Parts: sequence; C-alpha cells; structure tokens
Amino acid sequence: MEHLQGVFFERTAELIAAGHRLYQRGWLPATSGNLSARLDHRRFAITVSGTHKGTLTDQDIMAVNEKGHALEPGMRPSAETLLHVALYLADPEVGAVLHVHSPSATVLSLATPGERVRLSGFELIKAFPGHTSHDEVLEVPIFDNDQHIPRLVEAVNARAGGTPAVPGYLIRGHGLYAWGPDVARTMHYLEAFDFLFNCQLQLGASQP
Amino acid sequence: MEHLQGVFFERTAELIAAGHRLYQRGWLPATSGNLSARLDHRRFAITVSGTHKGTLTDQDIMAVNEKGHALEPGMRPSAETLLHVALYLADPEVGAVLHVHSPSATVLSLATPGERVRLSGFELIKAFPGHTSHDEVLEVPIFDNDQHIPRLVEAVNARAGGTPAVPGYLIRGHGLYAWGPDVARTMHYLEAFDFLFNCQLQLGASQP
Amino acid sequence: MEHLQGVFFERTAELIAAGHRLYQRGWLPATSGNLSARLDHRRFAITVSGTHKGTLTDQDIMAVNEKGHALEPGMRPSAETLLHVALYLADPEVGAVLHVHSPSATVLSLATPGERVRLSGFELIKAFPGHTSHDEVLEVPIFDNDQHIPRLVEAVNARAGGTPAVPGYLIRGHGLYAWGPDVARTMHYLEAFDFLFNCQLQLGASQP
Amino acid sequence: MEHLQGVFFERTAELIAAGHRLYQRGWLPATSGNLSARLDHRRFAITVSGTHKGTLTDQDIMAVNEKGHALEPGMRPSAETLLHVALYLADPEVGAVLHVHSPSATVLSLATPGERVRLSGFELIKAFPGHTSHDEVLEVPIFDNDQHIPRLVEAVNARAGGTPAVPGYLIRGHGLYAWGPDVARTMHYLEAFDFLFNCQLQLGASQP
Repeated sequence: MEHLQGVFFERTAELIAAGHRLYQRGWLPATSGNLSARLDHRRFAITVSGTHKGTLTDQDIMAVNEKGHALEPGMRPSAETLLHVALYLADPEVGAVLHVHSPSATVLSLATPGERVRLSGFELIKAFPGHTSHDEVLEVPIFDNDQHIPRLVEAVNARAGGTPAVPGYLIRGHGLYAWGPDVARTMHYLEAFDFLFNCQLQLGASQP
Repeated sequence: MEHLQGVFFERTAELIAAGHRLYQRGWLPATSGNLSARLDHRRFAITVSGTHKGTLTDQDIMAVNEKGHALEPGMRPSAETLLHVALYLADPEVGAVLHVHSPSATVLSLATPGERVRLSGFELIKAFPGHTSHDEVLEVPIFDNDQHIPRLVEAVNARAGGTPAVPGYLIRGHGLYAWGPDVARTMHYLEAFDFLFNCQLQLGASQP
Repeated sequence: MEHLQGVFFERTAELIAAGHRLYQRGWLPATSGNLSARLDHRRFAITVSGTHKGTLTDQDIMAVNEKGHALEPGMRPSAETLLHVALYLADPEVGAVLHVHSPSATVLSLATPGERVRLSGFELIKAFPGHTSHDEVLEVPIFDNDQHIPRLVEAVNARAGGTPAVPGYLIRGHGLYAWGPDVARTMHYLEAFDFLFNCQLQLGASQP
Repeated sequence: MEHLQGVFFERTAELIAAGHRLYQRGWLPATSGNLSARLDHRRFAITVSGTHKGTLTDQDIMAVNEKGHALEPGMRPSAETLLHVALYLADPEVGAVLHVHSPSATVLSLATPGERVRLSGFELIKAFPGHTSHDEVLEVPIFDNDQHIPRLVEAVNARAGGTPAVPGYLIRGHGLYAWGPDVARTMHYLEAFDFLFNCQLQLGASQP
C-alpha cells in the first residue's frame, strides 16, 4: 500500500483529532466507538479494536480492505468494521464513518419503540441533505442490537432501500452511526443528530 | 469600503471570538447560527452562510449593506441576514446581533404554546434593561418558524411595537436572536437568556 | 490603606481566580454574583458592581469598609455588599464570601416551599463542619428575595440565631451565599452545596 | 521503603493525573473521594485524607501498609483506606482503586431500593470483563452507607462471594468504588459505569 501512505497519514490525523474531540464530549466512554475514513475505492483507515479514543495516536489507526481484513499482519480490526465497510461499499460518496456511544443516541434509541425515530419542528433538520424545512420529518432508522455483526449488516442493508436518505442510523442501546463525504462534515452531522436527540428527549415526546 | 477596514477588522475579531465561545457551549451545532456586528449606519459584518462557528476565521466574515446584499462579489450571506439587518435598521443603538441554536431556546420555544415565554421570580431578570426587580415579568416573544425569511421579518416588525423592549426573541424550534450595543454585552444577554430558559425548563412550569 | 496593600493584592488574586473558575462552571451568568474576602477586622475586598466574572481583572476588585462604603472614591460597590459585610461582622472567622447564581441553587430555592432546604442521606453532608454522618440533616436556610437589601440583611440576621450553623444560605430565585475561613475552603463549600442541590433536584424529592 | 521509590513515583504521577481529570468531570466535589494504586503485595499509594483532588500534588499521596497504616509518620490516611486495602488483599490482580462521588452514582444508588442496580440492553455492558452481550444483566452491588468503616468492609467482604464479578460497587448516597489492573483501565471502568448510570437515570426505569 505504498502509494496510499500520503492519504493514510492525512486520514489518520483527521481521525485522531476527531476521536479526541468526540471523547471530550463524552460520546466515546471507555474504549467504545470506532472511527474510519476512506482511502480509496476498496481500502479504509479505521481505529484498532479496543483503543481509548481520548488518547488515540497513529499506532491506533489501521488499514483494512473491502472485506474488513487488516492490510498489515498483527493488527485486529473491530468486529464492527463490517458495518463501516458496508457503508463505503454501498455509496462511493461516503468518505468517513463515525460511530459514537452518545448518551442521547443510547437513551433515545431505547426509549423509542419501533424501527425509527421521527423528528420534526426543528430548524436544525435542515443540516441534513435533502431537507429544506423544519416542517419535514427526519426519519432516523433504529436497528435492534445484535452481537452477530454480519447479521446486523444484513439487516441494515435490507432496510436501506426502504428509508429516506439520512446519513445516520441508530443501533438500540448501542449508539449512532453517521457518515458523510469527509471527516469534517460527518462531525457536523454528529453534532446535529446529538442536538436533535437531546432536544427530543427533553421535550419528552416521541412523535408518531 | 476602504475607510471601514479598521472597524471591519475589529468587529471581525470580536465575532470570531464570540463564535468560538458559543460553539464550545453547544449553542451552534453543525453550521447553525449566524453572528453580526454593525460597521456604520448602513453596513454590517456577518458570518458567511454555512460556516462552522467553532472554526471561524476572518475568511468567514463578510460585509453586507442595508438590503442584506454582499458588499463584495462572490460571497453569499445567509438568508437570515435580513433578520439581522431589520434589527439594525429598527434601532441605531443596536451594535451586534447574535443568533444561536441553544438547546434551552429550542426546547422552551417548542414546549411553550402561544406567542411568548413569561419569566418571573428570577433575580437574573434584572440583567435586562428596564427591569429592576425579580417580581417583574420578562416577556420574550416567540415567533413561529418560517422558511420564507422576508415574511418572518414582517412578522417580527409587526409585533415589535406591541411588546415590551426585551433584547431578544425566540423562533419556535429554531433558537434565539439577541442583540445589544456591542458584541460583549450581547454575549451577556445570551448568557442571561440561556440561564433563565434552563431554570424555567427545570422548574417544569410554563407560566401562563 | 497603605499597610493593607499586600493583603489586598493577595486576596484580589484569589478572587480573580475564583471568579474565572466559577464563571466557567456557569454559576455567574452575565454580570451576576459577587465575590469578597476579608482584609482585616473592618475592611474587605469585593468585586465592583456590574463586572463580568469571566474576565475579572484587578481593576474589578475594590475595598470597602464595615458600612459597605468604598475606601477609595469613584468606585461603586454592589448593593449586595451589605450582605457580605453582615457575614464578616457576625463572625470574625469568616474570611471569604462567595455569592453565585448557580442553576441548582436558583431552581431548588424556587422549587422548595418554606424557609429551608433539608438534605439527608448524602455522604457529602460531611463536607460541612459539625456534620459527621450522612444520617444527619443539613438545613440550608432560604430567604425570600427582596430588592431592598437592608431589609434582606435584617431578615438574615434575625434568623441566623435560630438555625444550625451551615456556611451558606439561599435567596429564592436568586442564588447561594457561602462563606468560609478563606477563598479556597469557600470554593469547596460551593462545590459541595452545588453537588447536593443537583442530586436533590435529580431525586425529585423535596424532603419535608 | 527505599526499593519502592521508583514505583511509588510512577503510581503517584498516575493518581495525580487521574485526580485532576476526575475532578474536572465533577466526580470529586470539595475534598471527597480517594484514589489508590498498588505498590507491591502489601503496600499501596493513596491520597491523603481531606485533599482536594483538583489540585493534587505529590505531597498529597502517601504510602500505607496492608492494615491501612501510614508507612511514614505524620501523614493521616482517610478512614476509607480500609475499603481500598480490602480490595487489594482480596485479589492480587487489583492494581488500582478509584472512589468517586459522581452525581450519577450518588443519585442512582439512592433512587434504587434493594441491594443492587441491574443494567441491561446497553452495548457498553461489554466494557466489563466476562460480559459479551448487551442482553446480559450487569449487576452492580449497592451497600448501605455506614460511618463505621470496618463494619462496611465486613459487609462488602461478606457479599463479595455471592455476586458476579463486576469491578465496582456503590455505597448508597456516597458514590462508586471501582478497581482494575491499573489506573488507566480503572478510569475506563469509571467512564463506563458513569455512562450506564446516567443512561439508566435518564430512562427513568429501575429494572427489577
């Protein structure tokens, strides 16, 4: 992967900075969460399994292929790497995937029965592509948690066709996956999701 | 605008510092909000549309005229610039306008039916001009959100005559506009509003 | 006050540092609160009226006498200076008085009817002198707010004899006054009060 | 203890850094909490009684033996040192014990009747050894608070045999004790416990 070195170093620096900021916000407690960025059409940089995101260094970022396998021997990717890879393979425009355990995502996904959170009335809905008014409904899919990641990937892929394009989904009691064209814009989506989830929880209303 | 360069640089520095602090507080998630300051009687500095306020630089502040049009070609002001300009034109004492998406402003404006939030019993009410006792009622107008900004400007202007002079109003589900003689004192008003809104939400009482 | 210069400089530095920290915590929104420390048996250093505590400098601290009057002309002490002075005069061991508008103090004082908050079951009650077990009841007096400060001073003095010695009291909807032998230990009391008030609010129980 | 100097200095540096971070989080209000690390099979470094953890220096860490007595004269260990020592003696793998007064631990332990908090449905349960699915139940023991520490030690020891191995327990109204192989991993456990306690409180459900 010699010709990828430059882009790998750049994405690594971005993921480290993102990890530190997201940890400071309390969205990556203990060694939870995983962060990735696209290197090319079939290779991706991702945090090593079990790392603490508040103290990430370049030793904690590894490269994987489109099957989620390590490109270099001796490093173990997280089992959840497959969820990241599935998002990259489904859409060539996806440049980064950030998975956080924010309290708002965890609590709202447990407090909301059914397959989606529906958000409306918030100006910040317009932070998401394709939404031009607070009057629209932003639907964020919720998937039941599953320790068998390939089965979870299948569930996500099966439903993706049937839901409006929102750059994120919840796994119940587990947290939020969000993606975007690059790390910076995916950070913006995380901020917008968290803001909306917190407001919704404070309003105490699960809009049908 | 050569003769305005000095004041433009000063206001730009103040708006950048304010943006960084307000972002740190969580009041400007994603690229939401917009911040402005008066340059003279008919020109104003304002954040460029779609900028992230946590990483504002002097490239993200532009100058607009009293119609909200860019003074220099190639920069796009936010549609909400008209709400800022309306406040400057209505009162020559207004030196800064800061619009934030704080969670408290968003949630309280959605949780409160009707056209205003009424706050009473708080010593901090005295932070606002013309209020000398905790026993008084601070009325903060709420306007329904509207994606058609000129219509929203009209609604604000139509009601301004009928409400007591409080340096702020809420747009439902959208956030808070506050203004003052300069950026520093407008920051104080934002702090006071947010404190009061949070206390009111915690008290769980929407006083009629 | 030449011979007081040294101690005035030391206390000023302590009050400035305390102001910055308390502002960062959100306990001094806008220009609220006031902070003081004893200089000798009848002179005290206190924040100037209307200063923002997040940006305190040594120009914002002044000296007052036992009547609350400025020792040097041209500086205006806060009206609430009398509440500080009353505490110093009542007990020569009081070395510092810190008055904050913390959200927890504001909300709990409004949510609790009657003349006191009663706290029990918390280990942290032992942070206060004379309390040796979580089973004891910590009684924090609440006074109704009053814009006439001399009348408020009288109310505080009249009740002081009848309540257990706790180094703090609440003014309803206004905030917390706390005191101690020096600024550092008064900061500890503020932390303990705020922790207990927040826990009590979260528990949702106003113990009779 | 000459040959222990090196390890004492290292553990002291770790405990100081941990104290500063935990204080910043609001988990060590006033002078509450105590932090320790193992030096060898029968000696331990621990914070001196009554120190403020936000300003810890190496003067605030002392060494104690397996009876909780100071190794050097003139320093007073906290009465709760016995709870730390009991954990080290019960399991030679325990390398650090951190006791915090986090709001979540305090409130949840008071809001939950009975002898344990039961947590389920959270992915973060997997942060704890021996838990491999969100479907499992994480049981965190609660002990009633007791000012007589030897009796509290007995109560903890008596129950330890009957509960699943979770690296932490709550003392009602008092806070959380957590332990691990070293300071860093114990910090991770604290983060995971606090996250779970907060989510559980937000969900408002005390699962039976």
